[in-house]
Amino acid sequence: MIRLGIIGYGYWGPNVARNFNSSVGRSELVAICDSNPSALGRARSQYPGVRLTDRSADVLASKDIDAVAVITPVASHYEIAKAALREGKHVFVEKPFTCNVEQGEELVELARENGRIVMVDHTFLFTGAVRKIRQLIDDGALGGLYYYDSTRVNLGLFQHDVNVIWDLAPHDLSIMDYLIDSRPEAVVATGETHLNGHADLAFVTVYFPQNVIAHINVNWLSPVKVRTTLIGGEKKMLVWNDLEVDEKLRVYDKGVQVKNRKGVYELLVSYRSGDMWAPKLEQTEALRVEVDYFLDCIERGERPFNDGEAGVRIVKMLQAAHQSLEQRGKAVEL
Amino acid sequence: MIRLGIIGYGYWGPNVARNFNSSVGRSELVAICDSNPSALGRARSQYPGVRLTDRSADVLASKDIDAVAVITPVASHYEIAKAALREGKHVFVEKPFTCNVEQGEELVELARENGRIVMVDHTFLFTGAVRKIRQLIDDGALGGLYYYDSTRVNLGLFQHDVNVIWDLAPHDLSIMDYLIDSRPEAVVATGETHLNGHADLAFVTVYFPQNVIAHINVNWLSPVKVRTTLIGGEKKMLVWNDLEVDEKLRVYDKGVQVKNRKGVYELLVSYRSGDMWAPKLEQTEALRVEVDYFLDCIERGERPFNDGEAGVRIVKMLQAAHQSLEQRGKAVEL
Amino acid sequence: MIRLGIIGYGYWGPNVARNFNSSVGRSELVAICDSNPSALGRARSQYPGVRLTDRSADVLASKDIDAVAVITPVASHYEIAKAALREGKHVFVEKPFTCNVEQGEELVELARENGRIVMVDHTFLFTGAVRKIRQLIDDGALGGLYYYDSTRVNLGLFQHDVNVIWDLAPHDLSIMDYLIDSRPEAVVATGETHLNGHADLAFVTVYFPQNVIAHINVNWLSPVKVRTTLIGGEKKMLVWNDLEVDEKLRVYDKGVQVKNRKGVYELLVSYRSGDMWAPKLEQTEALRVEVDYFLDCIERGERPFNDGEAGVRIVKMLQAAHQSLEQRGKAVEL
Amino acid sequence: MIRLGIIGYGYWGPNVARNFNSSVGRSELVAICDSNPSALGRARSQYPGVRLTDRSADVLASKDIDAVAVITPVASHYEIAKAALREGKHVFVEKPFTCNVEQGEELVELARENGRIVMVDHTFLFTGAVRKIRQLIDDGALGGLYYYDSTRVNLGLFQHDVNVIWDLAPHDLSIMDYLIDSRPEAVVATGETHLNGHADLAFVTVYFPQNVIAHINVNWLSPVKVRTTLIGGEKKMLVWNDLEVDEKLRVYDKGVQVKNRKGVYELLVSYRSGDMWAPKLEQTEALRVEVDYFLDCIERGERPFNDGEAGVRIVKMLQAAHQSLEQRGKAVEL
Repeated sequence: MIRLGIIGYGYWGPNVARNFNSSVGRSELVAICDSNPSALGRARSQYPGVRLTDRSADVLASKDIDAVAVITPVASHYEIAKAALREGKHVFVEKPFTCNVEQGEELVELARENGRIVMVDHTFLFTGAVRKIRQLIDDGALGGLYYYDSTRVNLGLFQHDVNVIWDLAPHDLSIMDYLIDSRPEAVVATGETHLNGHADLAFVTVYFPQNVIAHINVNWLSPVKVRTTLIGGEKKMLVWNDLEVDEKLRVYDKGVQVKNRKGVYELLVSYRSGDMWAPKLEQTEALRVEVDYFLDCIERGERPFNDGEAGVRIVKMLQAAHQSLEQRGKAVEL
Repeated sequence: MIRLGIIGYGYWGPNVARNFNSSVGRSELVAICDSNPSALGRARSQYPGVRLTDRSADVLASKDIDAVAVITPVASHYEIAKAALREGKHVFVEKPFTCNVEQGEELVELARENGRIVMVDHTFLFTGAVRKIRQLIDDGALGGLYYYDSTRVNLGLFQHDVNVIWDLAPHDLSIMDYLIDSRPEAVVATGETHLNGHADLAFVTVYFPQNVIAHINVNWLSPVKVRTTLIGGEKKMLVWNDLEVDEKLRVYDKGVQVKNRKGVYELLVSYRSGDMWAPKLEQTEALRVEVDYFLDCIERGERPFNDGEAGVRIVKMLQAAHQSLEQRGKAVEL
Repeated sequence: MIRLGIIGYGYWGPNVARNFNSSVGRSELVAICDSNPSALGRARSQYPGVRLTDRSADVLASKDIDAVAVITPVASHYEIAKAALREGKHVFVEKPFTCNVEQGEELVELARENGRIVMVDHTFLFTGAVRKIRQLIDDGALGGLYYYDSTRVNLGLFQHDVNVIWDLAPHDLSIMDYLIDSRPEAVVATGETHLNGHADLAFVTVYFPQNVIAHINVNWLSPVKVRTTLIGGEKKMLVWNDLEVDEKLRVYDKGVQVKNRKGVYELLVSYRSGDMWAPKLEQTEALRVEVDYFLDCIERGERPFNDGEAGVRIVKMLQAAHQSLEQRGKAVEL
Repeated sequence: MIRLGIIGYGYWGPNVARNFNSSVGRSELVAICDSNPSALGRARSQYPGVRLTDRSADVLASKDIDAVAVITPVASHYEIAKAALREGKHVFVEKPFTCNVEQGEELVELARENGRIVMVDHTFLFTGAVRKIRQLIDDGALGGLYYYDSTRVNLGLFQHDVNVIWDLAPHDLSIMDYLIDSRPEAVVATGETHLNGHADLAFVTVYFPQNVIAHINVNWLSPVKVRTTLIGGEKKMLVWNDLEVDEKLRVYDKGVQVKNRKGVYELLVSYRSGDMWAPKLEQTEALRVEVDYFLDCIERGERPFNDGEAGVRIVKMLQAAHQSLEQRGKAVEL
């Protein structure tokens, strides 16, 4: 039985609490911490038996707690996670991992030294859609990847502390990191600031080896909500529309082939267009799957694929994108 | 009566011919030139009374021709248009205007010297959708512009001589040039090449003064066709989906307002969400409207807004984007 | 303060309980009854202070209860509501009101005699969409109505006690009853039974005076979920797609006009096609609005528009449709 | 070589002419007849070498004509087709076949006596979508059919001589006749008349043996155009949306299974929900395929499946629907 403490019970914390609480026989929700009294009030009415506190140190020092979920604003991740690791706790951290690469690397090192697990909560990696795409890649169904192109726009919600890249791009960056097997080479970002001093729309390009390219369009000022990703492969292409209730994923048997004609330097382009197929996706709540995986990793002493190192890779791209945006698209090597 | 010769009767030429031919009483289709015998065969069966030739010089030298439509591959625009202007013809040139800025500027100068009109066929500027957007801007309905963000992707058709930017971006660049009143400052483009040696997908950002930004996503390797443009303004925002049969344009009474609270440096963001409205659009064929406007300009001696100078501005952005793409997003100042 | 008892805490009961419970200062949730122990368990954990029982008689006889919500299967509505009215309680009954017209009329009479309010929970009448449509009709925006045509299909859920008409058509019948000012003349229904002995798809036509017609397509065997209603009027027409997240209602400035040419019997048909407009809809939860209205009616001694008589009108159409379906579309006069 | 004469060169005639004219080496377009001089003018400019006339008798009596296409208003089909058959011509008739069953049966008999082919132009049967659905049924992919439910609505075009059933329902009736192997038992139709004395919206139910049911919703007064057909089968279900550019057909691996529990009369309903699949459809113009098939049948002396008898079956259902509508849904046995 893994005993868990949650630090941060704002918007996302209650979902994390609910999933750990319902892992009957595997984990036990022991303590919840939040500095906001009304958040603690909600926690009290939902989990009458759970210990409540407004001081994170109470949770971190508890001997009866094995793992801590850090669901606070990003600025505090580093300090809380560091203290938790030093106390020998496993750590589940809300994304993005840390404010910068140095902090992240220090946490990775600390986890290694203490033999503890750090998992970064990139929830999207546990959705039925992303898992199915990963499987299609593993099965060779898509062939070699050409590109990943995501649009993630809607009206608001403006964040007061970060720009739109830090707010919305971690989703796509973590998905790319998970789906594309090579490591990115460089980041180019453009964007603009209109309202509150932080960029509210941005366009991020990530270059990978072998002509693989990724692009993310994030925007807080769009009149409509769009959550659409195109992925092009040599053999097949797909569209993932996360706003569809059913059929989020559509796989197209479409492609282009280029042949050189014998003896002549001339290109023959042939187009292929076949069936479309929308595979049934696993419906289980992504966070439910992720929490189970966190418990699995602790029990088996395995390193999760979305560990601190993965978290650092995402932060590295976020920093690079931010830096590139401020220099009007100057490529930042990774 | 304006007597017209058409040079180039491939894919687009027949549409130009049909519209000039049907401007009864205003223009007369006198000659058609194409080097391809089968194209000439189609022209013969469609316009039995029109003079046909495979030598453009025949058309350019004809004394009974007042205006020439140049509907050939871009590489030949400059030479043909130059000869036409020297012969005192008005010129209607397919987009993009020329291969480079120098050629375009020389044609502009030549037209000025000879008192002739050069119109660049940016057909989209004459669609009901773009004209309505321009009107909404003129009426102040959108308020100050924040951004123009267009996605123009589909499978193929691969061009053998140009990359995807030169193929697909002229549409959006000309629309931006028409809708945004200030002049662009810099271009950043990223993209990648997978099949035939030319970039097949690209992401172009154009910076304008006062934080206005434009972005164009063009892709020859998309499994689905998308023609969607988001335009954000201070007061209203709109979505233009050119693939919709009806209701191509949707105007959203949505927005974000930021206020500073008195005495404290803290932001108050308020969201506004009201009705959506799809104005009825003018249905007339865009090329029909454009051809009438060309004839108007000739008759009245007026300079068209889509004249050679506009054509040069588009070519300048295309060149800058191409150059930026080849340097992984290095900003090119305009 | 109106003290409320709820009988039936299955699927819909918890929503009713939540809304009465949150009408702070106006109503007090006093007792919950359900014959199912696990339902009572859920009620206990949600409302620790509320009296629980598995015998409806306990609730009906309580002196400290002013109103009873009957959220049980339709077969028991009549007996429970009758007992509640005899005890002098106001009654809020889940739809459909009763199993047949006689039961409904008896309850109406009983409510009249006892000066108590009966409200039938046709929740859809309190949605932003239906209220906006009613307003458009009241404002004369649609002009005289031509038709109401609704499609309400999806896969399952099969009911064991009733056919698809009794399951899905009450929504549309109550909306029609609310929107169309005249009373229906006749019902024609067709349909078929494939699986469990009850009709699983049905097509119901309701004839109203002055050529107004309504049609409802209900189906438990559809591969896709559809919730779309077309309403045609002399001046405007609208489409209500309840599955849209935003823009559920689209009002089209479209129409047809027929004129007789002077002196000749020949028709001149002219089509009108203008803007489309998606009005912003009230977002408040429909049941929230309805519960407030129930409390208003009790406090003011007003008869609700969705009272027992309205409930009887719906049951009358349901019975007629059922009867017509069994006779392959024989019209049943109302 | 089959020599063809076309009678009627209005809206649809030119398409028929074009397809017969382009069947190079198989058919020759010899004559075109229309009583309208401007229609003949258009024919002249399109087919300079073809004989033109305004008297159908000229075509019918021509010795050099083997087959006649009758593309005139339905009221004249019978007389023209009768004369053509008596002259020993094969006949291709626009749908609906005739004004009533008697006329159709007489033509069928006449064709039989003269050994000539009558084909009724139910073009939809030759679309890629309908052919693919037929194949799915033949392959057993759908399992036994449950229902066919079509919505075919839009604004206008009002016909002056027939109601909306005669105008729009022939498409669906012919498709049903083609897809459903048994013969219909009865028709029930409801509808209403608002503008020009003919019913402008109608709902037609057709009963088939073994609980198969079909329903058609036709409407000239809809603000939006809909062309959607749901087909439910025991094993799979499909949605055919003819307005989609790609992916007109979507096949759902969805279904419901009902089992009786042993020894108890209680139903166990289980739902199945799997992948969705949009098969690639044949893109060839349907009329092109149909014209080739007409020529095949003549050359091989085969009876087409869309022969006069099929035409009579459709007319029978149209008459029954019309009659039922006028009696408010009284079932008309077939």
